[in-house]
Amino acid sequence: MENGGRKRWGFQGNEELDKAASITIRGVLNKVMSNLNPQDHRPVIPLGHGDPSAFSCFRTTPVAEDAIVDALRSRKFNSYAPAVGILPARRAIAEHLSHDLPYKLSPDDIFLTIGCSQAIELIIKVLARPGANILLPRPGYPFYESHAAANHLEFRHFDLLPEKGWEVDLEGVKALADENTVAMVIINPGNPCGNIFTHEHLKKVAETARMLGILVISDEVYAHLAFGGNPYVSMGAFGSITPVITLGSISKRWIVPGWRLGWLVTNDPNGILHKSGVVESIVSSLNISSDPATFIQGAVPQIIEKTTDDFYLKIISILRETAGTCFDGIEDIPCLTCPHKARRIHVCDDIEDDIDFCMKLSKEESVIVFPGFAVGMKNWLRITFAIEPPSLEDGLGRIKAFYQRHAKKQ
Amino acid sequence: MENGGRKRWGFQGNEELDKAASITIRGVLNKVMSNLNPQDHRPVIPLGHGDPSAFSCFRTTPVAEDAIVDALRSRKFNSYAPAVGILPARRAIAEHLSHDLPYKLSPDDIFLTIGCSQAIELIIKVLARPGANILLPRPGYPFYESHAAANHLEFRHFDLLPEKGWEVDLEGVKALADENTVAMVIINPGNPCGNIFTHEHLKKVAETARMLGILVISDEVYAHLAFGGNPYVSMGAFGSITPVITLGSISKRWIVPGWRLGWLVTNDPNGILHKSGVVESIVSSLNISSDPATFIQGAVPQIIEKTTDDFYLKIISILRETAGTCFDGIEDIPCLTCPHKARRIHVCDDIEDDIDFCMKLSKEESVIVFPGFAVGMKNWLRITFAIEPPSLEDGLGRIKAFYQRHAKKQ
Ligand SMILES: Cc1ncc(COP(=O)(O)O)c(C=O)c1O
Ligand SMILES: Cc1ncc(COP(=O)(O)O)c(C=O)c1O
Repeated sequence: MENGGRKRWGFQGNEELDKAASITIRGVLNKVMSNLNPQDHRPVIPLGHGDPSAFSCFRTTPVAEDAIVDALRSRKFNSYAPAVGILPARRAIAEHLSHDLPYKLSPDDIFLTIGCSQAIELIIKVLARPGANILLPRPGYPFYESHAAANHLEFRHFDLLPEKGWEVDLEGVKALADENTVAMVIINPGNPCGNIFTHEHLKKVAETARMLGILVISDEVYAHLAFGGNPYVSMGAFGSITPVITLGSISKRWIVPGWRLGWLVTNDPNGILHKSGVVESIVSSLNISSDPATFIQGAVPQIIEKTTDDFYLKIISILRETAGTCFDGIEDIPCLTCPHKARRIHVCDDIEDDIDFCMKLSKEESVIVFPGFAVGMKNWLRITFAIEPPSLEDGLGRIKAFYQRHAKKQ
Repeated sequence: MENGGRKRWGFQGNEELDKAASITIRGVLNKVMSNLNPQDHRPVIPLGHGDPSAFSCFRTTPVAEDAIVDALRSRKFNSYAPAVGILPARRAIAEHLSHDLPYKLSPDDIFLTIGCSQAIELIIKVLARPGANILLPRPGYPFYESHAAANHLEFRHFDLLPEKGWEVDLEGVKALADENTVAMVIINPGNPCGNIFTHEHLKKVAETARMLGILVISDEVYAHLAFGGNPYVSMGAFGSITPVITLGSISKRWIVPGWRLGWLVTNDPNGILHKSGVVESIVSSLNISSDPATFIQGAVPQIIEKTTDDFYLKIISILRETAGTCFDGIEDIPCLTCPHKARRIHVCDDIEDDIDFCMKLSKEESVIVFPGFAVGMKNWLRITFAIEPPSLEDGLGRIKAFYQRHAKKQ
């Protein structure tokens, strides 16, 4: 096999995997950040990704940290955990989520995962069978597309309608679905648009899904982070209309995305997911998957029990303030408009598109914003306002300066 | 779609996934434990799975616990981590593992994973391309088979030879490999047999792999837990003969399997894994995979730096003692023989096979041992001795009583 000194090897990279992973929030952000100018000594303003945990005003509640330390120091949680997660954590989450529902969840409805991310991976794996397809929202969260591609599950996009406050285009959903459609995904509260679906709209989603014979997967990783008009309602409330699987985590509400603790929950009072074998396959998949650290699981009951409303309210109020700052700042930047709280760019002459905007902004102003193409919205931007207020103002000021410089060139 | 009140749903379970996950250590153990007799009030003796962390004599070093608390309290590690893991942790692991190698690893060779388990899942995913096959050891660790099946990677078994101290049957490897073979897996120190490959044998493994043009994956999760004859040598030492990927974790050496921190390491001074695209696909896969908790990553440098030889030596000496107790105890039980430190049963008349042995032992004596069929060795048992000495003695006594009762019936 050695010919001319060059050895032939039987292994190679996996193009399919490379392709599935080619558009991720992380990957796109890395690309934008790679364009930063090392000569610019101003602090980088990260308006590109939703991770406020680095800012002291978004520090998690000390009771959450204490819960981890207590669990660790107890030495009861150094062992492997059961595949579905430890019972006390599942029980605490069942109780916690039942507050949002007209019925009570059982611990057996709760499956612990490594953040909401692994819950997404898990349900896509379970639903992927040859020929099946899944309906995903556009704009959306590209992790769904990546895992669908990696697991050979065909995906089809329905639109969220900006003119209707980013509601699901239910006629579009009906037109896309066929006898091989297994599920539709909604993200509520929404990413990237930040909208919150009304009780009425969620009910219509459930009725549409029932008519089509499909499952609703509701990504509720931002649950309760509502500070605009609509109150947050869990899709689980409609689990008796059609089976609903909700996904969540402690990442956003407790602002500890690095702790990697989430859940997949069956909201299915009629037991359809059991009968259809979906629950069994969830367990199968967890049997050969990685688990969240056991002592972090062990801390969950105390985290949930001891966190007070003060903490939740403080975070909501900072977010409400920064959201306001962000919208006001954008109003002041003529090349950006913000219909229904998402951000569209009017392209300046010397800026080609959203990617070009982000790359140049990174280089010239050390401000990171996220190009919309990667969440399904060419020529839109995703600007995160979950950062400390002074940095946000600094960032918006720099975007304005960027605009003024480029506008002059027109 | 509703006919006669029965709704047709478009989703269903995933049989392929169910099948892939049907034989796991966890699953088989659950089955054996389900046969426990609730009327038996003696403590259950868990000789079935390798998780000594529940016993106080196997408590991890306090410096490891302190490292976690320090990382958590520093509040520097609440954010999302980069997909490959945080640099300080990768740097510390590179240095740590370089002690076992004739060259120095770089942090870029290290990819953090959720225990060794996720490292296994990761490399199988990367190598799985249509038509490819991988060579796995028998006896082995069924997680490899599960993930190969889940990812449609054909697997073929080569034997470990009891008469040669469980060395790899290299002729068998050559006979199995073809132009679609991508890699072979070894587990060193071995599970389930506990053997340690010599320097000489590992070199032969590397040379065989080079001849075949394949990668060697060396599962070194039990690295340095050597207390018999052969000293532990890392397969990475032969990375210049053929590319080697080593897998490891803190689970076993630090006795914290619940902390879920491991690594995949490219031992490849010739850069072949880069050129072939394997490294790129590892990164792709990590880009859409779950990460170990960031503050646990943050604790790694301190865990490695502060753990002293005292701790390692103490653990080795307890293991040496319990290994001795176990072998002596088994010598005293005529239906069990222990060639080369693995355990074979001579079946008593009223016991059918290894599964029957384990199920009855569970029911009658509340002792859990692991049936060999699930690791590729029908009518063998896997007995773990990594438990506290008094329980081990109790367990062996009960197995002896079990034997005597059943032998009488012959
Ligand atoms: C819509 C959506 N789902 C899931 C996730 C992943 O959340 P986690 O950190 O819990 O894995 C995110 C993270 O930003 C998200 O925006
Ligand atoms: C051979 C082998 N590889 C990998 C693992 C998984 O190790 P970890 O706990 O680091 O995921 C085990 C666990 O017992 C094992 O025996």
